[in-house]
Amino acid sequence: MAHGFALLGEAVDLTVVVNTADDLTLHGLAISPDLDTVMYTLAGVANAETGWGVRDETWSAAAMIERYGGPTWFRLGDRDLATHLMRTSWLASGNSLTEVTRLLTSGLGVHAQLLPMTDSEVRTHIRTSGGWREFQDYFVRRRHDEDVLELRFDGIETARATEQALGAIGAAELIVVAPSNPFVSVGPILAVPGMLDVIGAASARVVAVSPIVGGSAVRGPAAAMLRTLAGESGAAGVARYYASAYPTLIDVFVVDRADAADAAAVGAAGFEPNITNTLLPTDDDRRRLATEILALSDEGVT
Amino acid sequence: MAHGFALLGEAVDLTVVVNTADDLTLHGLAISPDLDTVMYTLAGVANAETGWGVRDETWSAAAMIERYGGPTWFRLGDRDLATHLMRTSWLASGNSLTEVTRLLTSGLGVHAQLLPMTDSEVRTHIRTSGGWREFQDYFVRRRHDEDVLELRFDGIETARATEQALGAIGAAELIVVAPSNPFVSVGPILAVPGMLDVIGAASARVVAVSPIVGGSAVRGPAAAMLRTLAGESGAAGVARYYASAYPTLIDVFVVDRADAADAAAVGAAGFEPNITNTLLPTDDDRRRLATEILALSDEGVT
Repeated sequence: MAHGFALLGEAVDLTVVVNTADDLTLHGLAISPDLDTVMYTLAGVANAETGWGVRDETWSAAAMIERYGGPTWFRLGDRDLATHLMRTSWLASGNSLTEVTRLLTSGLGVHAQLLPMTDSEVRTHIRTSGGWREFQDYFVRRRHDEDVLELRFDGIETARATEQALGAIGAAELIVVAPSNPFVSVGPILAVPGMLDVIGAASARVVAVSPIVGGSAVRGPAAAMLRTLAGESGAAGVARYYASAYPTLIDVFVVDRADAADAAAVGAAGFEPNITNTLLPTDDDRRRLATEILALSDEGVT
Repeated sequence: MAHGFALLGEAVDLTVVVNTADDLTLHGLAISPDLDTVMYTLAGVANAETGWGVRDETWSAAAMIERYGGPTWFRLGDRDLATHLMRTSWLASGNSLTEVTRLLTSGLGVHAQLLPMTDSEVRTHIRTSGGWREFQDYFVRRRHDEDVLELRFDGIETARATEQALGAIGAAELIVVAPSNPFVSVGPILAVPGMLDVIGAASARVVAVSPIVGGSAVRGPAAAMLRTLAGESGAAGVARYYASAYPTLIDVFVVDRADAADAAAVGAAGFEPNITNTLLPTDDDRRRLATEILALSDEGVT
């Protein structure tokens, strides 16, 4: 989604506020998977096949780590490792994660502004039938194959939204809630103290895009979590969940043509439904959806 | 030299006590260049062309670090990086460098025991006409192209020789001072408090091998340092330096056939001269020299 806006070039002054609650420390390295995925995508170096990591990656360090008996469940490519090394090193020098992210994106020539949701440490924990698990333990090591019964974001109460994130949201002409997992990707961002208030106070419309298309998540465990955490399913279920969890957040809810039948339910949830093609296999698709969503910022601003 | 003894297999119970005063921290990683070079060599994965690092290395992380504007003067290969990551991670878990080295060598299937000279942090600093420099700054970044006027080993006064190193030396049947740089490789080891005493008290003979052959160092700045720090040159100069700096340390001093004319000077320095081929281009050469040196342990034990 962010890629689509970035593809529109200088016409769009793009800021992406990114979830950091699934960050982890491994081998002493500060790893920010969501920030990295967005950064690599906007830099044009993302690995399109895996959906994470860097294109043309090599795996020499991982092979050697395995030889040493080190942990291999979280696969670290050699190029990716450099990102974590620089991040860790810059953080250790006293830079905030916001500043480090600026340095990293600048190194990769990313024009959009990438902002961590907070410079504080927040960590998602997930309760399954097996007990509480760290997010990446659940997501990567166990391949999110357990039912999610409960979530908590450790550190969220004392976390602070950054001046940069609050400023960008306050000044935005359009706020888009990406078609990401409402519980573990969007949820932590909205849970940062002050975040909902600044979105509520912003003059911009808020457009959310459904992460569920034709009943299933485009990627990952969003559909399963929607069922176990909210007792819902489908794009309409996402709309009802957002309406219930964040009553005044969203103005327009975009669903795929496959879910056109959900439009009435989206309206009943209190959102203006918008139906279009939301699957984005090509850059042209991404540009087209971004352009359509941008057009929503000019309509019915309240 | 250590490789030669290792090539003799189970006939030799080999312990290598290694200099750690040229260790450094880079990107937050604990790097031990001397330990790694010995470890990679004994594991059969050393890069013979460069004399450091791992064979069949890839450089993806280094390329990415350069893109981020990170330091590139100390080249970190991807496989090598895994060693530093594991070391850093294991040290952070509370293991000593001795224990970490055991874990690393075990991972690479090294049979010899590798021991850091100390688990304490000791750092060589080098004074040149440009002032005091950290060792790797002098050695790698500036390619040791400055005259060395003075040395100091920060932390050496409070460093402690490990029980393992003291135990191995005390129980040794033969102690070999490797043909390494007497000032910055051998020197720090002998400067660790307690080290000279335990060697002096050991019943084993001490055989030193000249690092200078035909007037020049086999590798590195040893010949230049011999000139600027001791006003000496040649294999005989090394013998005189050792005799002056460590009066009772050495029993036998091995010089290359190219330096046969130095035998009298070696004798005058108080050492029993031993003349043989000390250049070791092949494994056969290494085995042969190791066998010859082992034979010295049976002669004239006092």
